Amino acid sequence: MTENTPNQINRRVVVAARPSPAVTEACFRLEEAAVPEPGDGEVLLRNHYLSIDPAMRGWIAEGPNYSPPVPIGDVMRSFAVGEVVRSRNANYREGDFLMGRFGWQDWAVANEDAVDRKVDPAEAPLSANLHLLGMTGLTAYLGLLDVGMPKEGETVVVSTAAGAVGALVGQIAKIKGCRAVGLTGSDEKVADCLESFGYDSAINYKTADDLSVALAEACPDGVDVYYDMTGGPISDAVMDLINVGARIVVVGTMAVPSSPTPMGPRYNRQILVKRAKMQGFLVLDHFDRLDDAARELARWYREGRVTFREDISQGLDTAPSQLFKLLDGRNRGKALVRLISA
Amino acid sequence: MTENTPNQINRRVVVAARPSPAVTEACFRLEEAAVPEPGDGEVLLRNHYLSIDPAMRGWIAEGPNYSPPVPIGDVMRSFAVGEVVRSRNANYREGDFLMGRFGWQDWAVANEDAVDRKVDPAEAPLSANLHLLGMTGLTAYLGLLDVGMPKEGETVVVSTAAGAVGALVGQIAKIKGCRAVGLTGSDEKVADCLESFGYDSAINYKTADDLSVALAEACPDGVDVYYDMTGGPISDAVMDLINVGARIVVVGTMAVPSSPTPMGPRYNRQILVKRAKMQGFLVLDHFDRLDDAARELARWYREGRVTFREDISQGLDTAPSQLFKLLDGRNRGKALVRLISA
Repeated sequence: MTENTPNQINRRVVVAARPSPAVTEACFRLEEAAVPEPGDGEVLLRNHYLSIDPAMRGWIAEGPNYSPPVPIGDVMRSFAVGEVVRSRNANYREGDFLMGRFGWQDWAVANEDAVDRKVDPAEAPLSANLHLLGMTGLTAYLGLLDVGMPKEGETVVVSTAAGAVGALVGQIAKIKGCRAVGLTGSDEKVADCLESFGYDSAINYKTADDLSVALAEACPDGVDVYYDMTGGPISDAVMDLINVGARIVVVGTMAVPSSPTPMGPRYNRQILVKRAKMQGFLVLDHFDRLDDAARELARWYREGRVTFREDISQGLDTAPSQLFKLLDGRNRGKALVRLISA
Repeated sequence: MTENTPNQINRRVVVAARPSPAVTEACFRLEEAAVPEPGDGEVLLRNHYLSIDPAMRGWIAEGPNYSPPVPIGDVMRSFAVGEVVRSRNANYREGDFLMGRFGWQDWAVANEDAVDRKVDPAEAPLSANLHLLGMTGLTAYLGLLDVGMPKEGETVVVSTAAGAVGALVGQIAKIKGCRAVGLTGSDEKVADCLESFGYDSAINYKTADDLSVALAEACPDGVDVYYDMTGGPISDAVMDLINVGARIVVVGTMAVPSSPTPMGPRYNRQILVKRAKMQGFLVLDHFDRLDDAARELARWYREGRVTFREDISQGLDTAPSQLFKLLDGRNRGKALVRLISA
């Protein structure tokens, strides 16, 4: 068990600079520090997997966001799955696996607040706790079901559809008896949507001759639910097809730079005429529902009704490049970093 | 009771042309026809008051809207209060007053479907059934309470605030213990908001040096509910001030021409970061709740907790000019036409 014995060195990736505006190598720095000692109520964890998420661009940027930016010099904020190596908290024992905000580092000291969920390794692979049974799963599950409220026979459009969240949204839409239509940025991802994620139809929005026409063909009965992680011109095409009572779940704004605010067609008339609801969904507000969501998602996984794809790199030093790849849309599946050799 | 005896002539205003894009004299024509006979299940009504509403611009225009346009040559669609003169419907007797869609005409034949509510003349003045106890009241009441869901101590912004709906929204917001902030287009209307409609603060958006600054001063705790009948640049200023969990009720789009779709800043990031909800509200969907709403509004009226202002012209032939005045924002109070001499 040498893996679980702290050596003297904790390698960690800290935030070195703000994006300007691109997220580049200059934003991060690899450091070494002593392995920390857990204080009263804390645990020492050995991180096994790190999660790489689109929200990280926001976490290191200044400007309006839903959580304060990671201070320069601090360890990069990140969800991770770690094994408890030493515990000074009565709720956790050595050998327990936890999912929480443990940062881009080999070793982490965490208090109760940083722990999101105790992981059951029998439920699914450890890494799945960073997507299917973690924030990804909760984002897809609650965003679609609570805000989108899909009903059997309705049409659900997802943008983008082949990412970790989008892949799951499509599969949950199918479980709920909906027609699932995916928008994504490459032919390879279109194939993933159709072959792996259960979408009825998928469109490459980068190469479609006329996105509006392609969407209208894919949605002969209009759009009832739009799970929107992009905004921008893709969303403009979807908004023209919404049905009366449509629900637009605003989960991300990848295609809407934070500054300067880009211009686009005003949606007021569609929203009024169609009595549509456009609502922001932020998973951070709903951590208290993670256990319930994870239980149902794990059941669907064991029943073979949801599948996932992972894009894993090996070693802490690969975390920044995994993030660049994700932000460029070059990943295929949920981006993760493995810290413990498989 | 000569008033209630049909003569041979029914004067009516029909739609003569579509707006191009302004609504002008050319859109309407005064005609004469025989007073119609009620068929089985129908009543013959003598209209007393006609309602003049902003939605009428949409009712006579082509293009996406929530109800089909009034066909060229048909009587202009309009809410009205009329007295039953002859009844072939067991639910209504001669002398009953009804509110419904009876059109811009002296006499109307109506079936059950065209009747929205049986009027109790003791509850409030007859004309109030076309605003406080009619669509105006229902629009203000349900739009604010069901979609806006104001809580005590929250800030409610209304645009525009001095019209028939806006005046009522401000007063209901105050009844619910909110801070009410009104946006309106003249100093005279600002005075109405502050002196008659209970607003805590009111801003003339046409003359404000910097609307964003004026709004921020009027809303020191941000904006929790935005009752939006305009859209456009006014709304852009409000959107910059919304709080987490804000509700934006899209009730009208006076400042957003239907074609071509105007451009504006994209709201996606505010909606996401603030987990805001932007939802279209169309009163036509909620006629079944009119009785309940009217009952509570009538009670507030009798208790002196809500007041209203009327802008009444005399005679059927004044209906088009009342509409032009309303669309130009030159009315002061709910626009009505009286057909029976007072």
